[in-house]
Amino acid sequence: MIHPSAKIGRNVTIKEGVIIGENVTIEDYVFLDYGCIVRDNVYIKKRSFIGARSILGEYLMDFYKDKTNKVHPLVIGENALIRTENVIYGDTVIGNNFQSGHKVTIRETTKVGHNVRVGTLSVIQHQCKIGNYVSIHSNCFIGEESLINDYVWIFPHVVVTNDPTPPSDKLLGVIIDSFAIIAAKSLLLPGVHIYEDALVGAGAIVIKDVAKETVVVGNPAKEICSVTEIKNKFTGESVYPWRYTFKRGMPWEESDYETWYNSLCIGGAEKKCLIVH
Amino acid sequence: MIHPSAKIGRNVTIKEGVIIGENVTIEDYVFLDYGCIVRDNVYIKKRSFIGARSILGEYLMDFYKDKTNKVHPLVIGENALIRTENVIYGDTVIGNNFQSGHKVTIRETTKVGHNVRVGTLSVIQHQCKIGNYVSIHSNCFIGEESLINDYVWIFPHVVVTNDPTPPSDKLLGVIIDSFAIIAAKSLLLPGVHIYEDALVGAGAIVIKDVAKETVVVGNPAKEICSVTEIKNKFTGESVYPWRYTFKRGMPWEESDYETWYNSLCIGGAEKKCLIVH
Amino acid sequence: MIHPSAKIGRNVTIKEGVIIGENVTIEDYVFLDYGCIVRDNVYIKKRSFIGARSILGEYLMDFYKDKTNKVHPLVIGENALIRTENVIYGDTVIGNNFQSGHKVTIRETTKVGHNVRVGTLSVIQHQCKIGNYVSIHSNCFIGEESLINDYVWIFPHVVVTNDPTPPSDKLLGVIIDSFAIIAAKSLLLPGVHIYEDALVGAGAIVIKDVAKETVVVGNPAKEICSVTEIKNKFTGESVYPWRYTFKRGMPWEESDYETWYNSLCIGGAEKKCLIVH
Repeated sequence: MIHPSAKIGRNVTIKEGVIIGENVTIEDYVFLDYGCIVRDNVYIKKRSFIGARSILGEYLMDFYKDKTNKVHPLVIGENALIRTENVIYGDTVIGNNFQSGHKVTIRETTKVGHNVRVGTLSVIQHQCKIGNYVSIHSNCFIGEESLINDYVWIFPHVVVTNDPTPPSDKLLGVIIDSFAIIAAKSLLLPGVHIYEDALVGAGAIVIKDVAKETVVVGNPAKEICSVTEIKNKFTGESVYPWRYTFKRGMPWEESDYETWYNSLCIGGAEKKCLIVH
Repeated sequence: MIHPSAKIGRNVTIKEGVIIGENVTIEDYVFLDYGCIVRDNVYIKKRSFIGARSILGEYLMDFYKDKTNKVHPLVIGENALIRTENVIYGDTVIGNNFQSGHKVTIRETTKVGHNVRVGTLSVIQHQCKIGNYVSIHSNCFIGEESLINDYVWIFPHVVVTNDPTPPSDKLLGVIIDSFAIIAAKSLLLPGVHIYEDALVGAGAIVIKDVAKETVVVGNPAKEICSVTEIKNKFTGESVYPWRYTFKRGMPWEESDYETWYNSLCIGGAEKKCLIVH
Repeated sequence: MIHPSAKIGRNVTIKEGVIIGENVTIEDYVFLDYGCIVRDNVYIKKRSFIGARSILGEYLMDFYKDKTNKVHPLVIGENALIRTENVIYGDTVIGNNFQSGHKVTIRETTKVGHNVRVGTLSVIQHQCKIGNYVSIHSNCFIGEESLINDYVWIFPHVVVTNDPTPPSDKLLGVIIDSFAIIAAKSLLLPGVHIYEDALVGAGAIVIKDVAKETVVVGNPAKEICSVTEIKNKFTGESVYPWRYTFKRGMPWEESDYETWYNSLCIGGAEKKCLIVH
């Protein structure tokens, strides 16, 4: 079931039951596991792995009127690892080195940066911007018009909302600045701005902005201290800002944040864009 | 893989990998996308779209004893838009103009009215009654024996419970009256009654009834004001009761609530049933 | 699509679209519904039912480097009832009489006891130990390194965390002792220990240990009473410890807890292991 218009690169693996629509490009070394559906106008860059039964280029609403697919391209960057049963809509761009768990949904007109991870069952609605090196864990809901900057961590069952007076048509997306941490099961109300290096505690319900390097907890969430006051339970050492103490999967993995950052400044402005989205 | 007993209407689209069981009726203009499984005794009314790999007429518990399917009919109303990978059990009735997101689960012996929407990943348990024009957003859990009246809005990650002393066999379903709004990530404890036009705030944990037109927030949820005191952040105007300020997708979309409601009174009692379930 | 190395027992049902990999053993009376994927090195014991499109023996991370499957065996015990679209990884062991809802995910290096139930959409991460007769309801997230003892009940949308200072590499798993009850939508913070017969109330956010037979509620969760003070709303009788008042699906279903427990003592030490994991 491969449409004759498909452009298939070298060393591509296509397992049983895969369906490939019109105007699809699949670069070299891509692997499509059992039963993937690649609808029309999807571009998959080299070395990407698409897990069993994932659906790429899912229909937008305009399909359903006359059951014909309009042109809504989807681009999946290089070296993606998309696990099983993801649904990713058209009109969306996913950067390089994307990794997802199972059964993730990403809606149309959303832009996902490079080196992003999204956990099992998470849903990213339309019109979102997700920066680079963002980690969204399992079963999160990222509402329409959310803006998530680089190096943000979002833990399981977090909900990011957008409608100040539901139901309405006037949305106020949440903004999360770089290096902020949103702990498990917390809730961000429409339009709140979480500033750089802030930490939203587990289960917090955030109804107003959270200042830089601030820890908030509770319902409604209140400031309790600076992130610099939090110590590691095992070592007694300071933990936050986390970029000085954690490096797994980060671009400073081979050295440390400061060395890496200084090397960027030497290296030139064009690299700097990695840390301000 | 279409059972010879199936009755298939005109202009039906059946994509690759669809499986159709015994005693299935598919009316005109239905579209079954890739790999749908329509088990026995399913009736799909005209112009409905069934998304890829959805499973209709899923087995009840009695199947597993001897691996034979008993008669548990499922009816899907006209003009449904069921997205991918839904699982809808037998012994259930879904009204007309139903819309669902991806990976929705609806259990047996549940009745869903007309013009209902259910978001991605939501689970509706058995023995529920869902009225007309109800919107249930993503990843909600609607426990067994819930009663949700017409024009109710339920936002992402809401949980509706039913067991006052878990684990037990004596359930107390929640009742939500017409026009009530249950904001994101809130939790309704067993047997609570949310009255007409009430607003349960985001993240609230509701342990007792919520009076008509009342706003509750917090854990445990407490009354903070009347819904009439809430203003739109952009315009400063009153927002609630929402039926006077919001019309997208509603039967009063072409005029306004009052005009529409009055036209019903003129039109006769048989139309009135639309607003009292 | 059955690999020639597969060992298939008698009276096995294999529906259309099933894929069976290398070195798979399927015992007698197993039923594989439409489109199951059984990857390499999976062992399914007798009379188990594998729901449509479930994926057993899912790839671990080491697969993706060179796209070749390493040896990570999965064992599914006798008489399992696994519903549709589950994903269960390799290097995991599932006991007998397992039941799961739809779209459950169970990661690698996790051990699940006998007579366990896991609800629709729940995710059990790696390195967990789940005892016998544990019930985990819908859409729960059980983080890595959790230890859940026998006869524990976990209700919908519960989140069990493990990282005291996210993001980090030093995890502190939660411990839940036998007969404890974790009500809907509650959150357990890293390293907390819930002792025997405790009851975590719905929506509670638990930041420290919960003593035996204690009820906690709120954010942060605080002790409010002993479980023995809770009465059934219908009968006015004491409910907890629940093993004296509830028996459906339990090994004491045919008599009562005390009779059953005493019979174990008479029966010998080898049966006793059922109640201490």
